[in-house]
Amino acid sequence: MNKVYLDNAATTAIDNEVIEIMHKTMRENYGNPSSSHATGRKSRAIIETSRRTIANIINADPSEIFFTSGGTEADNMAIRGAVRDAGVQNIITSKLEHPAVLNTVFHLLNKKKVLKVDYVNTNYLGQIDLIHLEKMLSTKKNVLVSLMHGNNEIGNLLDIKKVSELCQKYHALFHSDTVQTVGHYDFDLKKIHIDFLTCSAHKFHGPKGVGFLYINKIRNITPLIHGGSQERDMRAGTECVYGIVGLAKAMEVAYRDLSHHVKHISNLKKYMIEQIKLNLPFATFNGQSDILESSLYTVLSVSFPENNFSNLLLFNLDLLGISCSGGSACSSGNVKKSHVISEIDSGDGAVVRFSFGKYNTINDVDFTIKQLVSLFD
Amino acid sequence: MNKVYLDNAATTAIDNEVIEIMHKTMRENYGNPSSSHATGRKSRAIIETSRRTIANIINADPSEIFFTSGGTEADNMAIRGAVRDAGVQNIITSKLEHPAVLNTVFHLLNKKKVLKVDYVNTNYLGQIDLIHLEKMLSTKKNVLVSLMHGNNEIGNLLDIKKVSELCQKYHALFHSDTVQTVGHYDFDLKKIHIDFLTCSAHKFHGPKGVGFLYINKIRNITPLIHGGSQERDMRAGTECVYGIVGLAKAMEVAYRDLSHHVKHISNLKKYMIEQIKLNLPFATFNGQSDILESSLYTVLSVSFPENNFSNLLLFNLDLLGISCSGGSACSSGNVKKSHVISEIDSGDGAVVRFSFGKYNTINDVDFTIKQLVSLFD
Repeated sequence: MNKVYLDNAATTAIDNEVIEIMHKTMRENYGNPSSSHATGRKSRAIIETSRRTIANIINADPSEIFFTSGGTEADNMAIRGAVRDAGVQNIITSKLEHPAVLNTVFHLLNKKKVLKVDYVNTNYLGQIDLIHLEKMLSTKKNVLVSLMHGNNEIGNLLDIKKVSELCQKYHALFHSDTVQTVGHYDFDLKKIHIDFLTCSAHKFHGPKGVGFLYINKIRNITPLIHGGSQERDMRAGTECVYGIVGLAKAMEVAYRDLSHHVKHISNLKKYMIEQIKLNLPFATFNGQSDILESSLYTVLSVSFPENNFSNLLLFNLDLLGISCSGGSACSSGNVKKSHVISEIDSGDGAVVRFSFGKYNTINDVDFTIKQLVSLFD
Repeated sequence: MNKVYLDNAATTAIDNEVIEIMHKTMRENYGNPSSSHATGRKSRAIIETSRRTIANIINADPSEIFFTSGGTEADNMAIRGAVRDAGVQNIITSKLEHPAVLNTVFHLLNKKKVLKVDYVNTNYLGQIDLIHLEKMLSTKKNVLVSLMHGNNEIGNLLDIKKVSELCQKYHALFHSDTVQTVGHYDFDLKKIHIDFLTCSAHKFHGPKGVGFLYINKIRNITPLIHGGSQERDMRAGTECVYGIVGLAKAMEVAYRDLSHHVKHISNLKKYMIEQIKLNLPFATFNGQSDILESSLYTVLSVSFPENNFSNLLLFNLDLLGISCSGGSACSSGNVKKSHVISEIDSGDGAVVRFSFGKYNTINDVDFTIKQLVSLFD
């Protein structure tokens, strides 16, 4: 295990409160939630309490929360459901989306399930061109817009309220991959209309293998995974009771501590930007990464100039005890630029994503800066 | 929680060894297996070790094991993959299959992805008519046969070796829902040709929310869930590291202790059959439930004659502290007969499935018999 973990956008360490309740649930509540006897009913109660906890936090109805095996399944379920059941024939998305969206959309196009996929323009900073989005929306029917809330590689934040309004104006469905923002930002789904929103517990100190899809109650879609009648016939398979409990606890802890969390992590990011500017003045920031109000407070994407070892920069940082990544987890260690980095202006050198979590400290930043300085000395 | 748990075909209590390694993994290994740094590589190593453990046990290649969120997802992935990518146009299955199979097949027929679905004949005992199966196979091309190994409601065991031979003879693909038998029976996948086999950890004292699909290496299918390149591009989404560890440990424990396990549970079932015959002579056994060598040693399906309270039999047993079910977990407590029970001769009364696990004792059986006697007195 490395000394400094700055890859919290890839995954986070599980919170102790989360581990404890999962451990307790594993020991005490093994019933199948679909069983009608006392042992099963106890598990059922745990799941429904978890669902209410989550719904309350994002101001949704419990009936709008569907547990899944994670964010990727939730994205697949939403996009494929919208196409299968809601008459969607056109998808508008961007080239900066997560593979869970891009590859699902590509599969649908490939299988001729949708007529056309359009990519909204983005600029050198990775900003989504909302004027272009509106122009496309105004000329198309039966549209699903799929745009992520916080970009996992460069941290750009989307104005989802504005996108939501545009989608409503032009009667388009709106799906947002909110995997990087649920647990880190406030949501009020009664105030902002989103049709499908996705969550992955392990991005905010919850367990891997569990997440949810929020489906706005005005939308009816059918399942991706068929079988038993779990999740009100929307997601078959025995529910992962202890995982769901862990997800709910991670949400509870995240929103209980949110203001402290935001302040702590924002300060770390701000400090790291300052230290990079001071000690590594040749480094540049990608996307809107260094504009605090326009990017995830958890993500800082930095480009370092090309030199003899920049191809091995991540490898060297790893040797020095620092975990961070190239574009995203899937592309970390890879010298090939990720699909997101290729779309923006990131210079010629090495791209490193530093992403912060609640367990990081100023010392982690200092240590990382020191090692970077030594590498570029 | 009830005193006596006789619903192990619905789900099982997690083994302490499994809980302990999961707890340790949750505390110590939070890295994303797709990350190339040390923190991620540690998780990757854990997953690949787990895959090898499992592959060794069933004599498969590690590259044939794909982790999923459970048995239902694995069944969906296999059946839909076979239809999408292996040219399957006809499905032969039975009316006694699990909903994960039946509803997936129904969805494919409904969406015109397959030309035809045929159901192999079954008799009053729920036995699969292999002569009828061969007759159908001999007249059809591009066939997928999907027949479960051990029936979850009545316990009937299928001769999968014979079915495998028939499928090979007629060039049909063979999928078997082995959710009730993996962890309870020996498998040697080098000796018996199966194309797709499914596993759910929580059926043998492992965790919920994790399982695997075995895909014979001669078959190429594409994913059900699109996104990142996890599981060699076959199943996107960050892997549930601690769940996979739990699955591997549950397999290890199950096969380490298998002969003792079989003996212990078979004796419980045998004893319960004797006690029912002795104390409740009006009860009858469903399917091949009372023929030890032809049914799961873990499942005993019993019909009790109709009387004033037989509709409430499960409810009364629950009140008396006994967890068991009607057909399956999904239909437990439901007076309506399940799809499986409707296909066989189960008399007019109440059907109860007692299913045994390693934590059950002779006392559990004695207590249950005593309560049943008091109810029918």
